[in-house]
Amino acid sequence: MATKIPYKTYLTEEEMPRSWYNVKAHMKGAHDPFLNPATGKPCTKEDLRAVFCDECIDQELNNTDEYIEIPEDIRNFYKTFRPSPLVRAYFLERILDTPAEIYYKFEGNNTSGSHKLNSAAAQAYYAKKQGLRSITTETGAGQWGTALSMAAAFYGLQLDVFMVKVSSEQKPYRKEVIRTYGANVIPSPSETTEAGRRILREFPETGGSLGCAISEAVEKAQNTPSCRYVLGSVLDHVLLHQSIIGLESKAALEKYGVTPDVIIGCAGGGSNLGGLISPYMGERLQGKNQIEFVAVEPASCPSLTRGKYAYDFCDSAKTTPLAKMYTLGCGFMPSPSHAGGLRYHGMSPIVSRLYHDGYLRAVSVKQSDVFDAAVLFAKCEGILPAPESAHAIRATIDEALKCRKEGRKKSILFGLTGTGYFDLAAYKQYNDKTMNDYVPTDEDLRRGFETIPKCAANDGLL
Amino acid sequence: MATKIPYKTYLTEEEMPRSWYNVKAHMKGAHDPFLNPATGKPCTKEDLRAVFCDECIDQELNNTDEYIEIPEDIRNFYKTFRPSPLVRAYFLERILDTPAEIYYKFEGNNTSGSHKLNSAAAQAYYAKKQGLRSITTETGAGQWGTALSMAAAFYGLQLDVFMVKVSSEQKPYRKEVIRTYGANVIPSPSETTEAGRRILREFPETGGSLGCAISEAVEKAQNTPSCRYVLGSVLDHVLLHQSIIGLESKAALEKYGVTPDVIIGCAGGGSNLGGLISPYMGERLQGKNQIEFVAVEPASCPSLTRGKYAYDFCDSAKTTPLAKMYTLGCGFMPSPSHAGGLRYHGMSPIVSRLYHDGYLRAVSVKQSDVFDAAVLFAKCEGILPAPESAHAIRATIDEALKCRKEGRKKSILFGLTGTGYFDLAAYKQYNDKTMNDYVPTDEDLRRGFETIPKCAANDGLL
Repeated sequence: MATKIPYKTYLTEEEMPRSWYNVKAHMKGAHDPFLNPATGKPCTKEDLRAVFCDECIDQELNNTDEYIEIPEDIRNFYKTFRPSPLVRAYFLERILDTPAEIYYKFEGNNTSGSHKLNSAAAQAYYAKKQGLRSITTETGAGQWGTALSMAAAFYGLQLDVFMVKVSSEQKPYRKEVIRTYGANVIPSPSETTEAGRRILREFPETGGSLGCAISEAVEKAQNTPSCRYVLGSVLDHVLLHQSIIGLESKAALEKYGVTPDVIIGCAGGGSNLGGLISPYMGERLQGKNQIEFVAVEPASCPSLTRGKYAYDFCDSAKTTPLAKMYTLGCGFMPSPSHAGGLRYHGMSPIVSRLYHDGYLRAVSVKQSDVFDAAVLFAKCEGILPAPESAHAIRATIDEALKCRKEGRKKSILFGLTGTGYFDLAAYKQYNDKTMNDYVPTDEDLRRGFETIPKCAANDGLL
Repeated sequence: MATKIPYKTYLTEEEMPRSWYNVKAHMKGAHDPFLNPATGKPCTKEDLRAVFCDECIDQELNNTDEYIEIPEDIRNFYKTFRPSPLVRAYFLERILDTPAEIYYKFEGNNTSGSHKLNSAAAQAYYAKKQGLRSITTETGAGQWGTALSMAAAFYGLQLDVFMVKVSSEQKPYRKEVIRTYGANVIPSPSETTEAGRRILREFPETGGSLGCAISEAVEKAQNTPSCRYVLGSVLDHVLLHQSIIGLESKAALEKYGVTPDVIIGCAGGGSNLGGLISPYMGERLQGKNQIEFVAVEPASCPSLTRGKYAYDFCDSAKTTPLAKMYTLGCGFMPSPSHAGGLRYHGMSPIVSRLYHDGYLRAVSVKQSDVFDAAVLFAKCEGILPAPESAHAIRATIDEALKCRKEGRKKSILFGLTGTGYFDLAAYKQYNDKTMNDYVPTDEDLRRGFETIPKCAANDGLL
């Protein structure tokens, strides 16, 4: 084992970033604005105020400042789980017998088991600073709900989590972690909101959906004094908070004079990928590097590789602003056979725009190939990856094997967003060889596309 | 937040210990030797060879060398999960409003979720080096089985894990992690061994016990060519491997000129506590410090605080050598209401001797008090602790509150051995307020003591 570069690199606390990186500062015209579906006009700060915290709205609408300072209180909370390690995957390289150098940024060493805590910490802090008493959100796989419950406990905020009912039943221990941190878990659809009651009247047996849970949480925020809604992915301010992943990776790699040739991240809503690539992408947009950026999505929910670039709702209940993004249609339902997250119909508008403009490549991978990669990785590098993260591992292994075949030495950086400790039902399927590789048919996609709104902004796009 | 001392301290890879610390080198006459129950005489290397790896036996019987080198291959594997962080618990200090300085060494940042991997890495390596094809062990709560499956996968060894049947049913996901790393999980008692079949004939409905699983694994090792048995706690060589916890803690604290006034660890079999304290205890035995060492055990299984210091079997099936230790009797069955590990009837002979000689203080704590401490800790420090580890947190909080009352500034170091991600059924009991605080009656203890063997070596001790 050559160890000029250590296996793990931790920045010191003094070296931790003091600002987030706002990649929009270098995106020409940034991405297209959110539209108010009632008026068809760009959302104003006022449109968003009843739902989101003021500071998050300012960040959402900030297309000009390259760096935005991280308040000291957030930096202090970050110290409980950051800096995260940048790992040189010596053992994976050895087993692949590849000339490639593989690095990964591991964001799973915290109780939420994922990178979600980076934005939860920030959003809970801003809610507290604004003098709010409570926040509310939805959770599907449960990582975001856990992360937010930790942040809410830390800052002393009340939290209501609308948890997709089928998730809360299939993952009772995820629910229990959230409860342990003092948050209130409400299986969705619930009787506590008009949106929930409407769904229950129409589909009494439903197991719920992320779209419905979002609608319930938004309604709760709008109807509760001193309460706001927070979201764990997709939005620009979430990507901003996640830029700490890329900034730390870059600072660590620069110690060894390494600039990656390829950066690979899994993409569901896009927050991890966006955060990982943003400082490098900022340089790329200025012509300062020629890094290849790769988004990896599941073949079962292929928003970038098979979706349309159009204005769509962020939720399936059609209550949110319209975002210009790659989407399978807000009514697209990914197969329940797909493990873990990455089940979102759309994609972060920032990531979508970068992809549309050719700065980002996208690949889709099948579930069983993803778990092959996950288990190989676990056995040599120790960490049991989350199924989401394993999408990036799959693409990394493929890239490294290509390097071997071509005899090329590349530096590959990928984001290992989290651990699979709460995904063992999926690993059991894999171990039992009962996992399937569902891929939507063209007809499935057509039905999804029909749910994209036919508004003026979409003229010529559909 | 005063940050002269960082929140987290990681040693660099160059600073990681290159040798383990053998505290027995400074224990006068070390502890009393293991006895062969058939002859009543001290166990020889030959007695142990059919069961244990040669190198582990050498380490087990080594009472003289203060330092034992860690082979390079093990140090490389250690890099996948070490160095572990030494954390200054600023947020816990703040919430307790205590003048005490609190530090903890966090060993939970690996897939096994505990410190067990420190010894699993070593024992699997030595088995491989000896040219063995397979190893076997037992697991109860599952941390040790997971750790060993990781190490076996890393070194390419076949592994059979006898998992207490009730655990394998109650913790299916623990079983699944072990399977994912390629090991074979056998619910115990099983039909695969004579010991298992005997138990099944006598108690067809039994959920199994750690004692029975040990007997099955030992039998399997004895009857399988090129296979040995490995154990995750209690034995001297396991404590030796765990000394890396104490060595790293000491190296990190010495950077800031800090010597702890008190060192606190939870104690089940004693490997974590023994490893944490060993380098400090070595100095104490040489009169170089006056540190107070505290073992924290559950009130439901109080081997140090209410047990007898006598020769006893290490397993309930009475197949192992006799160890001189604090014991509740090898037939003592802790209440099933007790969450997590720390359910062992005995205690590491090294820890027992140190306690007997007055170098170590022991306290017992009740389960609900332990979970009160766990949840307080999780909310301010972020980490959801394993129930075992939370015993040390309880005692640390009590010590810190005493410091506040007395206006005394002490430096407290405790061992945070692992995470509670697989213990959420216990947290659910706590959240639902259905947890109970069982403490064995004098009559329960009397029945346990009757199972301690009445042999010559125990004359005058019972």
